[in-house]
Amino acid sequence: MSEVRTVEWVNGYVRMIDQTRLPYQFVYVNLKNYREVAKAIRDMTVRGAPAIGVAAAMGMALAANASRTKGRKRLIAELEAAAEVLRRSRPTARNLFWGVEVVLRRAETTIGGAREVAAAVVKQAQEMAEEDVQANRKIGEYGACLLDDGNQILTHCNTGTLATVSYGTALAPIRSAIRQGKRVKVIATETRPRLQGARLTTYELLSDKIPVTLIVDGAVGYVMRQGMVQKAIVGADRITRKFVANKVGTYLIALAAQANHIPFYVAAPSSTFDLQSEGSDVKIEERSSQEITHILGKRITPIGVPVYNPAFDLTPVELVKGFITEKGVIAPDGLEANASLLQT
Amino acid sequence: MSEVRTVEWVNGYVRMIDQTRLPYQFVYVNLKNYREVAKAIRDMTVRGAPAIGVAAAMGMALAANASRTKGRKRLIAELEAAAEVLRRSRPTARNLFWGVEVVLRRAETTIGGAREVAAAVVKQAQEMAEEDVQANRKIGEYGACLLDDGNQILTHCNTGTLATVSYGTALAPIRSAIRQGKRVKVIATETRPRLQGARLTTYELLSDKIPVTLIVDGAVGYVMRQGMVQKAIVGADRITRKFVANKVGTYLIALAAQANHIPFYVAAPSSTFDLQSEGSDVKIEERSSQEITHILGKRITPIGVPVYNPAFDLTPVELVKGFITEKGVIAPDGLEANASLLQT
Repeated sequence: MSEVRTVEWVNGYVRMIDQTRLPYQFVYVNLKNYREVAKAIRDMTVRGAPAIGVAAAMGMALAANASRTKGRKRLIAELEAAAEVLRRSRPTARNLFWGVEVVLRRAETTIGGAREVAAAVVKQAQEMAEEDVQANRKIGEYGACLLDDGNQILTHCNTGTLATVSYGTALAPIRSAIRQGKRVKVIATETRPRLQGARLTTYELLSDKIPVTLIVDGAVGYVMRQGMVQKAIVGADRITRKFVANKVGTYLIALAAQANHIPFYVAAPSSTFDLQSEGSDVKIEERSSQEITHILGKRITPIGVPVYNPAFDLTPVELVKGFITEKGVIAPDGLEANASLLQT
Repeated sequence: MSEVRTVEWVNGYVRMIDQTRLPYQFVYVNLKNYREVAKAIRDMTVRGAPAIGVAAAMGMALAANASRTKGRKRLIAELEAAAEVLRRSRPTARNLFWGVEVVLRRAETTIGGAREVAAAVVKQAQEMAEEDVQANRKIGEYGACLLDDGNQILTHCNTGTLATVSYGTALAPIRSAIRQGKRVKVIATETRPRLQGARLTTYELLSDKIPVTLIVDGAVGYVMRQGMVQKAIVGADRITRKFVANKVGTYLIALAAQANHIPFYVAAPSSTFDLQSEGSDVKIEERSSQEITHILGKRITPIGVPVYNPAFDLTPVELVKGFITEKGVIAPDGLEANASLLQT
């Protein structure tokens, strides 16, 4: 799986793995315009903060590529309109907004007419895909130093190749440690309601022959108490000065890790950091109640039960032992000092 | 639902609600012998520690009732054999062992021949069902004092009528508070893997018009941090001097409650207490991996993924604000002093 590309620019299309069909079918879909990309982000054909960041950038590239305008200014106006649609696809992941911003900045700073700007935008999106893979390999290198031979690592949701362009964020240190010859194993939470752990993380790790054991989300505390976990590593959707926004359930993992003296790490590229924000303004996405009331199209609850379905939660940074980034491992009290290093 | 009987002795049969078919169908099953009762406990036709305690006692009553032996000693030997089968149905709930023991004790202390002993055993099982309902109403009364008008209460798994003969343990204070005119609302966790919260708690509370909102297990910390929870109340399968064994996920709820200064209560009848044990010897049941890999008969994971499925976890008693029992509310540091009060 570490050579697979989750999102890729192929002959003027955006090619993605359709993650809603995993683990049953491994299927690519080709998206032809930015509206299809926005829809793919919204319905979670593509998910994972770094992957949707690059997908959004590629959506911008599709908009640029499809434009027939001759005027530079009009092209940029079109790109701004596309940016607005893409930004509205999901609210929490910092990377999505970052992906759109970086492309817009490139458009604005490119000298030339519409043609040159469009070409630069397409190039920018492709570079961002490549940079994501490079960043993840760096995260892998820095993170692998923190893992010891024989460690069992608890992780949440999916933070692997499928959550990025390739290689992963929280799974990157595990991949790199294994390449270094360390025998590390993974405990994956199933991650309700969308079951990214049960469907995607197990799929990736089984494919790569990395030992994995699946548990329900509620068993996190018990496996930690039983001494089955030496480290916990999760990804992130947005990291502010005070909070980590990540898949709902992350905060409980951090609390259980603290109570059991287990180091809890967050692995994310700098594009996930939003250090101008303290965190109280982070918008936590609420998704459809059907994600909880139905599984595989079948209703599991009584009809008419009210549901609350926040997709993310907020973990205070004090519970994080270190942030594993492509620029090094940063302690929570070092976030502010490293704000300019992590600015993207 | 508070007038429904989950387990009942009806004309020489044990009648149970088949909880595996809820919320789709409300169906009773009639069990004719103790082996059927043991199977019903094992496959969770009946579940909930107090309910399986009474079910086990009624299994003993079926064994006594069916016996054709004339000898008192032989009847007791038959009862001991039935007890052994029933004890092996599930390992964690204290009440199961208690149910069997109380009946055996009654058999041994009844004066007379096989006929008198059998009659006493049947009577004992019926009395235990009635006592369970009375105990739960007391739990409701004591617990309701702890709840304030407008409180939203987080609960886990199912601890209502369906987990007991009737009225419930952790849901009893909520029922009683509502009867007193307090407007209390419930947040129910879905409780993977068996979804007792999503299937049973919502069913009960909707039936009784008690406001309920369903969340995934991972959202517990987030709803607490958001100020949506004023109290947490759970049931228990076994309470020792140091630990509460309860449905997996309970420990995370207790940790999140502590971190957010929310009182965390455990509601259970004295038959759940096992204060001769410190807790390190409690057997935590591991159930089939299929409970996690499949939902409603459909596979949700890749084929061949290793699974770890502990059904319960252990919460240190220090995290419990109070134990709500039919004999009053007891603080964790009062457990030892009240050991004889809670002895059954």
